[in-house]
Amino acid sequence: MLNTTLNSTSALKVNGQRLMQMMAEIGTIGALPKGGVRRLAFSPEDRQARHQVQSWMEAAGMTVTIDAAANIIGRYEGRFPHAPALATGSHLDTVPNAGIYDGTYGVLAGVEMIHTLHDQGIRLDHSIEVIVFADEERTMIGSKAMAGKANPDPNFYDHPHYEPIEMGLNFIGGDWSQLSSAQRDTDSLAAFVELHVEQGPVLEAVGNPMGLVTGIVGQRRYLISIDGSASHAGTTPMTMRQDALVAASQVILAVNQIGHLTGDGYGQQVATVGAMKLSPNVANTIPGRVEMTLDIRDLSNARLDAMVATLGKDMAAIADQTQTQIQIKPQLRNEPVPVNSHIYNTIAQVCDQLELPAQPLPSRASHDAQIIANITDMGMIFVPSENGISHSETEYTSPEHCIQGANILLHTLVQLDQHYRCPEEAAVVSQKESKV
Amino acid sequence: MLNTTLNSTSALKVNGQRLMQMMAEIGTIGALPKGGVRRLAFSPEDRQARHQVQSWMEAAGMTVTIDAAANIIGRYEGRFPHAPALATGSHLDTVPNAGIYDGTYGVLAGVEMIHTLHDQGIRLDHSIEVIVFADEERTMIGSKAMAGKANPDPNFYDHPHYEPIEMGLNFIGGDWSQLSSAQRDTDSLAAFVELHVEQGPVLEAVGNPMGLVTGIVGQRRYLISIDGSASHAGTTPMTMRQDALVAASQVILAVNQIGHLTGDGYGQQVATVGAMKLSPNVANTIPGRVEMTLDIRDLSNARLDAMVATLGKDMAAIADQTQTQIQIKPQLRNEPVPVNSHIYNTIAQVCDQLELPAQPLPSRASHDAQIIANITDMGMIFVPSENGISHSETEYTSPEHCIQGANILLHTLVQLDQHYRCPEEAAVVSQKESKV
Repeated sequence: MLNTTLNSTSALKVNGQRLMQMMAEIGTIGALPKGGVRRLAFSPEDRQARHQVQSWMEAAGMTVTIDAAANIIGRYEGRFPHAPALATGSHLDTVPNAGIYDGTYGVLAGVEMIHTLHDQGIRLDHSIEVIVFADEERTMIGSKAMAGKANPDPNFYDHPHYEPIEMGLNFIGGDWSQLSSAQRDTDSLAAFVELHVEQGPVLEAVGNPMGLVTGIVGQRRYLISIDGSASHAGTTPMTMRQDALVAASQVILAVNQIGHLTGDGYGQQVATVGAMKLSPNVANTIPGRVEMTLDIRDLSNARLDAMVATLGKDMAAIADQTQTQIQIKPQLRNEPVPVNSHIYNTIAQVCDQLELPAQPLPSRASHDAQIIANITDMGMIFVPSENGISHSETEYTSPEHCIQGANILLHTLVQLDQHYRCPEEAAVVSQKESKV
Repeated sequence: MLNTTLNSTSALKVNGQRLMQMMAEIGTIGALPKGGVRRLAFSPEDRQARHQVQSWMEAAGMTVTIDAAANIIGRYEGRFPHAPALATGSHLDTVPNAGIYDGTYGVLAGVEMIHTLHDQGIRLDHSIEVIVFADEERTMIGSKAMAGKANPDPNFYDHPHYEPIEMGLNFIGGDWSQLSSAQRDTDSLAAFVELHVEQGPVLEAVGNPMGLVTGIVGQRRYLISIDGSASHAGTTPMTMRQDALVAASQVILAVNQIGHLTGDGYGQQVATVGAMKLSPNVANTIPGRVEMTLDIRDLSNARLDAMVATLGKDMAAIADQTQTQIQIKPQLRNEPVPVNSHIYNTIAQVCDQLELPAQPLPSRASHDAQIIANITDMGMIFVPSENGISHSETEYTSPEHCIQGANILLHTLVQLDQHYRCPEEAAVVSQKESKV
């Protein structure tokens, strides 16, 4: 059955020109001089882009609704409208200096995919939804509200640089006072597949295959503080120093070493010291105190635990050897999110059938998909990012890769349509062949 | 002859109570709440302290003059007034949060030593000068002018926090327009011995002996810059990073290792990275650039050269391994200043005869003595600093050590008086015994 269906549609291809035309057009909303965009969530540019996408959704044969969390839901009705929907989507809001691909590409590939089905008069068993999630870049309020994970206190989202979130939501068509109504029943969605640019250099480094996302890594952030003794860089002999920076350097190299561990499930983890503050930070005084951040990410909580435990032992030895005190304090913890194995396998199979090379890799950045995974089966597809660059005006993915990604999304949803059974299907199964 | 003279005066001791009384009294001028002082050069407090010391000099039997560089010169006339003088001295100005010992102790021990000779009616062959050098802490203008090393352009000494140096000098009795007149002829000084608190922990660590200064270290300062590539701490795999902070950590440990080299003349050098700046310095981005200071000090230029050469090789290897670019740029260079070996041996001999343990060590901080070494033989004596602390209100040296240091200074000058021949001595040598 599955093969039959795929074979019947495997020649189906999205309209790549139309997809790239939409990408170019939406890139003019909030355009920056070097080809990027600034389309902050809840800004006039965000609202304008959302209106544009709504009209493209309607042209593609979808009905459009906006929930209380200001998520735009474009729905292409299936043969069994009461069955759980298959969904895709991403976001249109951007960081201050963004490229045109991050988020937007996943939304427009979804719209194009539906437009292609609509053009061909193809209707699947399940309804398909293309969702534009509100404010992915800062609060993830859209996907969180849909998954029932939003904080009901609007002050939780306060930030000195931004207006209150209630105002923001209302400006783009949401309604904070009804936020809980945006929560979706787990029965209303059968699966969610997000298509996104990689935002990293892994795919390019192995020859630009498509990316089979194995999961979204868990992230933990810590503050490491090291106390030594600030004293005169001239008059304090080497053997009488408690140099917090020498200790910090050893900790940084230990972190780096843990990041490079291989074997026993290791090899995909990352470990970074990104920020650092010295006291007193003057040339002729031995640093008395160093504070620095530690950021570690991996798909496995067990490995993250093991990394922290190894570092703890390393730091105890370093503190002892350098006569310093070293403390580590947790600051942030996001759990790893696995992808659904059937969806993963389906994406892999589609790549194979479309003769597109594919590479498994974890997502080490956050996406709406990891939030939506709370209420339905989730999978993700990556397309290569040139030079691994994102959150920058120089972000780039070739048209060829954009179109290939959209085709993978299309055929993945077609396949999933066959995998998930519709409750009403049994009653109408005899009518099926005449309708597809 | 030398032994005879020492024996005849070895019972001679300074008036320790009077010395500590002066220390306490001068500590009230510019007093800070926790027992320290703030007596910035050219401030009203500096002027008041200088007036106080002038009156103590006069009470000790000295004639006082002030040169154009605002150096106070208290002179205790010798039997051969036209012979080059033996000199001691230090400074009364302080850093903003100072203890009462740095500089001031050397001045008052000199005054007390003369007062003791005066009390006993002892007059040496050579005149003895106790010199208060102007502004040691910032410009060293006093000792530099005396050594002919001052910059004739007053703007050279400009600093946004301080008034023009001409105004400062005039305020405390100098005269910028006549500055060159402060330069001393090399024939006018036979030797200069400075007594100072160690400002470091070396003496305390070996049981608080007196310090036999072996020289004043040369200092070189560099700016090291490391360029890697700033990228996302999540999406950039460990093997594809050019992490400037990982490279910097390796450089810091290489610097530390060079500081710890022993054998082949090494062991007294220091090497410090004290200040550091990361870009972009945020938790979720791999550091793309690190700038840091390097400060190295040693008595030997050859060893300093070798340290820089070793570090250069280390940095090339680190740059290669971490795929970063590392540059090192000289910023400051002060030459090492050796002490006069005869003066050094005399101080050692005096400690021995006074049964005071003594420890050779380099001075790793700057002193007026290193400037005056340009025009005469120079030696230095250190007394222990509690916990090695200086430039802090908690700076402390015990009365016992203060008094011991003053006695060493006294007997060192008595011995040097015998060592250096006075031009007029031959003519009057027959009258000598009746006069001492």
